Amino acid sequence: MSSEKTSLGANVFLYPMPVVLVGALVDGKANFMTVGWVSRVNFKPALMAIAINHAHHTARGITETEAFSVNIPGADMIEAVDYCGLVSGRGTDKSSLFDVFYGSGGKAPMIVQCPLNIECRLHQTVDLPTNHLFIGEIVDAWAEPRFLKDGHPDIQAMSPFVLTMPDNVYWGIGERLARAWSVGKKLKGA
Amino acid sequence: MSSEKTSLGANVFLYPMPVVLVGALVDGKANFMTVGWVSRVNFKPALMAIAINHAHHTARGITETEAFSVNIPGADMIEAVDYCGLVSGRGTDKSSLFDVFYGSGGKAPMIVQCPLNIECRLHQTVDLPTNHLFIGEIVDAWAEPRFLKDGHPDIQAMSPFVLTMPDNVYWGIGERLARAWSVGKKLKGA
Repeated sequence: MSSEKTSLGANVFLYPMPVVLVGALVDGKANFMTVGWVSRVNFKPALMAIAINHAHHTARGITETEAFSVNIPGADMIEAVDYCGLVSGRGTDKSSLFDVFYGSGGKAPMIVQCPLNIECRLHQTVDLPTNHLFIGEIVDAWAEPRFLKDGHPDIQAMSPFVLTMPDNVYWGIGERLARAWSVGKKLKGA
Repeated sequence: MSSEKTSLGANVFLYPMPVVLVGALVDGKANFMTVGWVSRVNFKPALMAIAINHAHHTARGITETEAFSVNIPGADMIEAVDYCGLVSGRGTDKSSLFDVFYGSGGKAPMIVQCPLNIECRLHQTVDLPTNHLFIGEIVDAWAEPRFLKDGHPDIQAMSPFVLTMPDNVYWGIGERLARAWSVGKKLKGA
């Protein structure tokens, strides 16, 4: 082992984590929860997974409706996004914080104000000790043309943000560094 | 549905995705692969998941050794990180690109040059149509003191980067925007 490295123990986080609002219908009402444990997990079909504590109001809604949405907020929504992580839908109606729309599935509430909305149909639930890992198949995604470039989401127009824990800070997206699947070619044959 | 939103179809990605190097022993040799589909998935015990295409060399190594590492690279490593996503360990020896060390498990090769190293023991494999979702229990994590602040990883010192697809661009981390679990408090009772 490198002698300069210090052990940090097991409870470390990813650097950085994305920040999304997960939408679900709970008892027929739209509810939104802030989530940083989210990732694509399968290429074809397109699957996306979110990890949510068993006790969360949203977990019950996803289990019952077999649907959820992943909404990527912009930095201008940071106060509302943080608020959705502070209060539970069990005691607070979060449905009126945003304008809500639905896609073809009709059971995954999505947020008009978010630059990108991803509608998912529950594919599989993996029960882990403290969290449900909900794996959803992406049904469709939605964005306004002003958030697109060449037909795809444009991160600079979307202006999403990321999270670090346990210092609990939101960070913006920085400058364009390089082209992926390209900048490393110069090491080929090196 | 909001009339201004355009359908993008199902194959959308998360904005942004983190960028890590996953380490595994394959046929006894350290191998590293660039991965953007990664997330914490359970609070206690601390579990982290990575999604890797079935065909990848790394997938065989993780299945055989039941161990892997998640290494967070700094932006100064961007060419080597991209290179690890361009070439397979099947035909190219990537073990000599970095200085390698091992933790107590002894089966998860980690990269000295990466600011943060997370050692995982395989907890569960979820087989999805095109990808394996490897869920690992974090055994320990490692960082040099220069990458820590108050005993925890400091993203500004680490300088990780993120990825967008399908435009295939790496981006840096931007400015500090706000404190999480705090900035939204002003909406309470509003």
